Order: sequence, then C-alpha cells, then structure tokens
Amino acid sequence: MTEAPRRRRDRSPAPSRAGYGHLRHPFAPQGAFSDDEIANMHDTALKVLENLGIRILLPEARDILRAGGALVDDDTQMVRIGRDIVTAALNTAPRSIRLRAADPAHEQMFEPGAALFMAGSGCPNVTDALRGRRPGSRESFVETLRLQQSFDVIHMHGPSAEPQDVPIHQRHYALMQDQLTNCTKPLFVYARGRGQVEQSFEMIRLAHGLDEAGFNDGVWATTVINSNSPRQLDIPMARGIIDFARAGQMTLITPFCLAGAMAPVTVAGALVLQHAEALAGITLAQLARPGAPVAYGGFSSNVDMKSGSPAFGTPEHIRANLGSGQLARHIGLPWRSATGAASNTADAQGATETVNALWAAMLAQATVTVHAAGWLEGGLSFGYEKFILDVEALQTLAELCRPAAADTAALAYDAIAEVAPGGHFFAAQHTMERYQTAFYAPLVADLTNHGLWVENGALRADQRATVLWQKALADYTPPAACIGIADRLAPYVARAIEAGGMPPED
Amino acid sequence: MTEAPRRRRDRSPAPSRAGYGHLRHPFAPQGAFSDDEIANMHDTALKVLENLGIRILLPEARDILRAGGALVDDDTQMVRIGRDIVTAALNTAPRSIRLRAADPAHEQMFEPGAALFMAGSGCPNVTDALRGRRPGSRESFVETLRLQQSFDVIHMHGPSAEPQDVPIHQRHYALMQDQLTNCTKPLFVYARGRGQVEQSFEMIRLAHGLDEAGFNDGVWATTVINSNSPRQLDIPMARGIIDFARAGQMTLITPFCLAGAMAPVTVAGALVLQHAEALAGITLAQLARPGAPVAYGGFSSNVDMKSGSPAFGTPEHIRANLGSGQLARHIGLPWRSATGAASNTADAQGATETVNALWAAMLAQATVTVHAAGWLEGGLSFGYEKFILDVEALQTLAELCRPAAADTAALAYDAIAEVAPGGHFFAAQHTMERYQTAFYAPLVADLTNHGLWVENGALRADQRATVLWQKALADYTPPAACIGIADRLAPYVARAIEAGGMPPED
Repeated sequence: MTEAPRRRRDRSPAPSRAGYGHLRHPFAPQGAFSDDEIANMHDTALKVLENLGIRILLPEARDILRAGGALVDDDTQMVRIGRDIVTAALNTAPRSIRLRAADPAHEQMFEPGAALFMAGSGCPNVTDALRGRRPGSRESFVETLRLQQSFDVIHMHGPSAEPQDVPIHQRHYALMQDQLTNCTKPLFVYARGRGQVEQSFEMIRLAHGLDEAGFNDGVWATTVINSNSPRQLDIPMARGIIDFARAGQMTLITPFCLAGAMAPVTVAGALVLQHAEALAGITLAQLARPGAPVAYGGFSSNVDMKSGSPAFGTPEHIRANLGSGQLARHIGLPWRSATGAASNTADAQGATETVNALWAAMLAQATVTVHAAGWLEGGLSFGYEKFILDVEALQTLAELCRPAAADTAALAYDAIAEVAPGGHFFAAQHTMERYQTAFYAPLVADLTNHGLWVENGALRADQRATVLWQKALADYTPPAACIGIADRLAPYVARAIEAGGMPPED
Repeated sequence: MTEAPRRRRDRSPAPSRAGYGHLRHPFAPQGAFSDDEIANMHDTALKVLENLGIRILLPEARDILRAGGALVDDDTQMVRIGRDIVTAALNTAPRSIRLRAADPAHEQMFEPGAALFMAGSGCPNVTDALRGRRPGSRESFVETLRLQQSFDVIHMHGPSAEPQDVPIHQRHYALMQDQLTNCTKPLFVYARGRGQVEQSFEMIRLAHGLDEAGFNDGVWATTVINSNSPRQLDIPMARGIIDFARAGQMTLITPFCLAGAMAPVTVAGALVLQHAEALAGITLAQLARPGAPVAYGGFSSNVDMKSGSPAFGTPEHIRANLGSGQLARHIGLPWRSATGAASNTADAQGATETVNALWAAMLAQATVTVHAAGWLEGGLSFGYEKFILDVEALQTLAELCRPAAADTAALAYDAIAEVAPGGHFFAAQHTMERYQTAFYAPLVADLTNHGLWVENGALRADQRATVLWQKALADYTPPAACIGIADRLAPYVARAIEAGGMPPED
C-alpha cells in the first residue's frame, strides 16, 4: 500500500465520473407503516376533507370546488370535499410529466422511479466563510444559481436565496432573468399572485421563443404550493394551483406539517393532516384543469421540543419521509420530498441531518428531493459551504443509481489467481485497466493521512469547501443555451418596470 | 410557533427515551447485486478456495484442514478446500448465538435480524479537543470503555484505543481488567496468541466465578479475525480461530479487503476475495469444533486513488456493505459489518462518511456494526467528540427500530377536528398528553435559532460534544455487576506479571 499509490499520485488525476444528470432509484421502497396503516391514514384524510373540511381563502377556488361537487360555506370559507371528488381528481392527475429545459439534455421525466434533486430553496439569507451571514441579494441569487448549474447532480433549479435587495413588485423579473440567463435546467416560478405568474410565464416564452402551444408542450415552470397548515389554503397558493394548472405547468403541492406545532404531535397524525391538505390541493388543480401536472408533496417533520424550531434528519423526519412515500405510492403519484438541516453551520450536525434525511428520501423513492444541498438553519440560510458538502453526499448516492459490474471480469478470478497470497493488486493487469474510473473521486473529502493533513493546514471539510465553491464560480461559463436570452428579456422587463412592476398577491 | 415552545422551555426537560439496548432491524434487506450475481460470487469464491487455495501459516491449522479433507502443501503452506468441506462447515455453524454479559440485561442474541453496535475499535491513537491527538494509553482505554458503557445504543465492547503505555506482554491483562471492572456488556478479547487468549478467558472465569461449564454456556468473549488479504491467514489469527472455537467463544471472521490494494479493484472482485477468505476461516472454526460460534465478516471498501488510504462511506463502501449482507444471507449466517470515517477530524466529512456507512449496514441487516462510534482517520484514532456525534446517529436509527404508533389515537382525527384552520396544536389535548415523549430528544444537535446560537458562542457540534463526553465521564459510576471484580482479578494478574507476563504470538 506504500509504493503504487505514490506512483499513481504522479499521474494526472482520475477523470471525473460525473454523469448524474438522469437518475433512477436503486432501492426497493421502504416504509414506516404497514399497508393497512397507510390505507387507514388515507381513509382518515378523506374523512377530514369530507367531514371537517379545509378553509380556502380564495373565492375563485371555492367556486371551482363547489362546481366540482364540494360543499362550500362562503361565510366561513370552509370547503368540504367528498371522497368521490378526490378519487376522480386522482384519476385525472398524470403519472408521468415531461419537464422541459433550456438545454434538452437537462429535460427530465418526472415520474415514479425517477430520482431528482433540487438545491436548498426559499432561504431569506445566505452564508459563507468569506462574507459571513447576510440577507440574500441578487448577487448571491446569481451565484447560487451558478453553483446549481455547475453540478449535474442538481436536476431542477430552486429559488435558493431570496434577492431581498430587489423590491418585491419587481423581484419576479429578477428571479426569471437570472434563472433564464444563467441556467439550463427545469426552472422554478414562485406562485405569488396571478400577475407575477403570468409575467414569469411570458418571460419563459420570450426567452425560448415559445408560442402558447410550445409552452404547453410539457412543463416549463414548476412551483411549490405550501398550505397554511392546519387545513387552510391562502389566496396566492390557491391562485397558484389554478393558474399553473390552467397553463399546464407543475405544482408540487406540499403541506409543511410540523408535528407538535401546525400538525398533530404524532408522525401518523401529521401525515394524516399532510395527506388531507395535499389531496385538497391536487383536487383543486384537477378541477381547474383535468390532467394538470401535479405532484404529491410531503414535508412533515417534528418541532424540537426545547426550542420550538423545526427539526430535520430526526427519527420523526425520517419516518415522515418514509410514510409520505407510502402515501404517494398509495395514490400512485410522483412526489416531492425534502432533506434539510437545522444546524446553524456546516458542521457534523448539519451533515448528519441532511444525510439522514437524504437516505430517507431515497428509501421513500421521492421523485424530487428539495433542499438537497445548501440548506441551513431550517431554511433560513443558504450555505455555500453546505452546498458543496451536500453535493458530495448527493453524488455518493447518485453513484449507487448505476448498477455495479458483476460480470466475470468484475469477479476478478484471474486477478485473484495472479496475485500471490499476502501480495497486493496495485500492479495487477485487472487494476491497471480500471483504476482511473473504478472509484468515485471525492469532491471535498480529504483522505490524506493525519501527518499530511496537518501539514496542509488541518482544514475541516467546510473549510475546504470554501475553496471549492469559489472555484466553481470562477469556472462557471454561461451555457450556450443562454446566449441571446438576456437581450430578448431586457426590453420586456424595462417596459414592465416602467409600467410599475407587479405586486405580489396577499 | 412562538408562544407555546417558550412555555414548554420553562418545564423540566423531556425525559430521555433511551432504551436502545436490544434492537431488531426495521428495514427490508437491500442489495447491490442480483441474486444470480451473488450466487455467482459465492461460486467463484468456492472456486478460489478449491483451485487457488489460501496460504495458512500455522501448521496446526493446516493439519485440521487436512484432516477435514483439504489438499495441503506444507512446503508452500497452501491449502485448497473443496466446496463440500465448506458446505459441511456452513451446516454446522450456528445461526443464533447467545452473548453473555456481566449484567444479564446486557445479554444479546447474535442472530440474523438483530442489530448490534460496537464502538470504534483497534485505534492506536486517541484524540479530543482538550488534550489533542496522542497515543492510546491505559487511561484513555478506561475512558473510552466508560463512554461505551454510558450509552445503551452501544451493545458490545470493542478494544477502542490501544493502551500503548502497557508493555505488549502484559497488555492483555489491562485489556481484560479494564473491561471487566468498568463494563457490563459482551466483552472483546484479542486473538494475539494461545497464551494471551487462555489467560484472558481465565480472567473472565475468575471475574464472574464461572466454571468450565458456565464459561461454555453461551459466549463470554468475542474476537475479530482479520485475514492477511489476499489469501493468507497468519499464525495468531489461525490460532485464534482454533482456540476460540474450542472454547466455544465467538470469532467475527473478517477479511479487510480494500479494493485496488489488497483486493481486486472492482467491488464484486473484492467481495469474491472477502467471501473466499471468510469461508476459509469459518471452515477452520467448524473443523476445530463443529457448532463453534462464528460470524461472517465483511469489511471491504476501496482505497482512495489519490492517497492510497482506505475510504469509508463511499459508494464503493456502501455497495460492499450491501453485497456483504447479501452474501451473509446467501450462506445464512449472522454477520459483522462496519461503518468508518477516513476524516482526520470530527467534521462534516466524518459525519457524512459514518452516516452513509451506517445506513448501508442497516440496509444490509448487519448483525453487528463495528466502528460505529468514534472511528477517525480510517481507524488510526479514536475521537472522543466523534464518539458523541456518532452516538447521536446511532440513536436516531435505533429509534426507527421501534414501530411508530398508527392506531386511531395516533392518527389524531379528533385533534385535527379540535384545532381551527390556521391554528396550532401546541395546546391541543392530544399534544399535551404526548409531547414529553413524542420525539427523540437530541444528544448534541442544537436547534436554537441563529441569533441564540451566536449568543451562546456559535459552537459547532464537535465543540458541544466536548462538553458531553466530559459529562458522561463525570457521571459514570461503576456498575453494580462490577463490584468485587477488581479484587478477584488483582492476585491473578500480579502472579502472572511476576511470572513474566505472556508475549503475543507472531
């Protein structure tokens, strides 16, 4: 073990095995509950919807549900949805959804069995070792988009860090311009009211020269719909469900049910509430437009009983993830999960939280796992170092999505015969033919011995990650598919801003 | 989410839910290879043993194998073992093994389906934030034993850190005295030659007042047998297999096959070599005494191609773990896996490595997972902070070994009915009845918000862990089952040392 590695170190580094752009789940789905218990949760959620109902603040959404057969009380804004209506909606929801992308190589089929990752999203702040923790800005939004673009294990763009230096009535222009001019993977559009959504869709059409038919051919925009648990859907969220459905764009309908806070203190109870709210949203989408692309969303965890903060990577979060996958399979829809970290910094706690939740999402066969890289403080900060560390974890699992060779050559009988007892395989023909691509090449992990590690400054992984995100940003070059888009969008945005912008909807 | 948690913080902390002393695997076993591929690996390993053979340095072991029908060449020390001999050995190996312990509550059934954890073992050095990295000493050995004793998620004692300040011909006395006087879980005995093993067994009998029959009633001592891959078994290891088998004590027969170094560069090839070597050891044990307690051991990973160091938590390590579990199930034996970290410090890399490997061991249904807490630098250091951080990961997975409640009360329909839309569950009767034990209470994870975290010193998880291992050592009290043992052992050890001690066998 002493001679050959030194020789090998003199050679050029092993070529990257990246190629994580399209992944299928390698594991059999695992559950946290029995099939009967899951059927019981589904049934209880249906009872919640038909007996207790859900409060829907948007009159238009209540009208659509009323027309679909739901019992609506406009005074209390309560809507009770019979199980036949939900069942019919589940029958029209598509099982397989084509996600379009500026670069056709980055298109995805969003369907059960596919494994997609989205970076940490929705963070008001950003943090890195060089510049500290600060409110998200347009500059940091662009940087975090470029980081997402730079690693092919990130499959969909998320609204990583909120550009808080852009006024709220103009922010959607920035969110779209920056995604469309820097990135080529499936895009995210916030559902912050009809006006902003329509303008965001228009910017996609302008950027890619799409007519209405082209825009409707597959999904060009995805959004997340969070209900206001328990049992409430606010105006922009309800509007988003309707508008995305009518435009043939995708909604990830995701209650955020924290057991013990906005949801029952038991994981099973939190899942019942999550399921009821997700089914209500899916039903609204299907009534707005049968066949609308929707995904079941699960983002239930527990609150920490000491601090009241959301917890991630805990046993309860893992169970909720596994149970959500079971519920998604019960209704047959593709689904969105999430990892996450409550840690305030990119330390061992943060890694344990994210990696635990990531394994849970993989075993639960999440179609897309959101917040998979860069999420700190339960989503209050996007961490640059955390992003790099999490990409390593994602790449490790992505490697497992490919089958390992086990043919006669891989079983290596001849190599075993060639090497004498007590010898080594460094120089074996079998090794020489394969060593350059045999193993995953670590991104940030440092496997040098302790002496050399000390000599090199005794850096922690998060400290090494600082170098790596800087390098990724320095190496970033605008993708060919983005050329010309800035020019096509600029006049539209200028006119829109001159016309006063577009405030979000409350 | 603002009011109730504050109220709750004023109360006494939630009682611990510890009770991780006896765990059963919660997941369906997962694999990295098809059943056909596993059968093919098994067959190829048998071909290795019958055609190529294994070099066995101990004449007594060769004689036992020769008597069992193997073809032996004493000049080359090569032993070729026919598949009928291996098959017969697998038929006599027990499927279920009772591990005895000083405290009967700490006994374990070592059998498929059981999930046991052993702390990081065999480390020449120790490291902690207060005293730095240093060679293992008797003091640190005792401390790390007490840490193992303090957390019930650690099920078997491992020889954490080598007491290098004790001369090698007396070290086994220290290893046994310190385990027997500080700990009450199943013990470890090094296989460092017949003399040391016999004396170690005698110390167990003395400590617990066991006669020969009592010592043979279940397993009082466990050891790890590492072959000298490729295809070689040295004298102390072969002697250990024979002596433990004859004494009815347990061997974990564990080749350490690093793909690309002492094993073929492919995971499948490394597993073939591992399997052949493990089968040879198991066969020797069963020929020495049919029915001897043995476990299949898998500890294959890859070498890092940049540094030549062993890698852990990598895709290759995960696959090797999953494949080892498949091979163990193929032959029907309980088996030993391992986690591990190559990181030089208790950072995000170390956490990612250990947690990845831990999930792999769980999905592979390892009977015991060794190095599960505290292993750094690929085993060159036992880290006190790392131990605490890993215990958190173990406890998280241990929680999943209990089924989650999903009865009518857990589904919480009434609680959902009670809480108004948009409200919260903090004060719900359902919550009040359960919140104290509803969730896992973190050991080291800090879920306070960023402001409070900064106020409290912005400590990383590893920094908080420093406080926790100190507290565990301060809180340690000698278990009742250890009382009197020191006095029973002292005269024996004094006499043995006076007689010159007992050197290990080369």
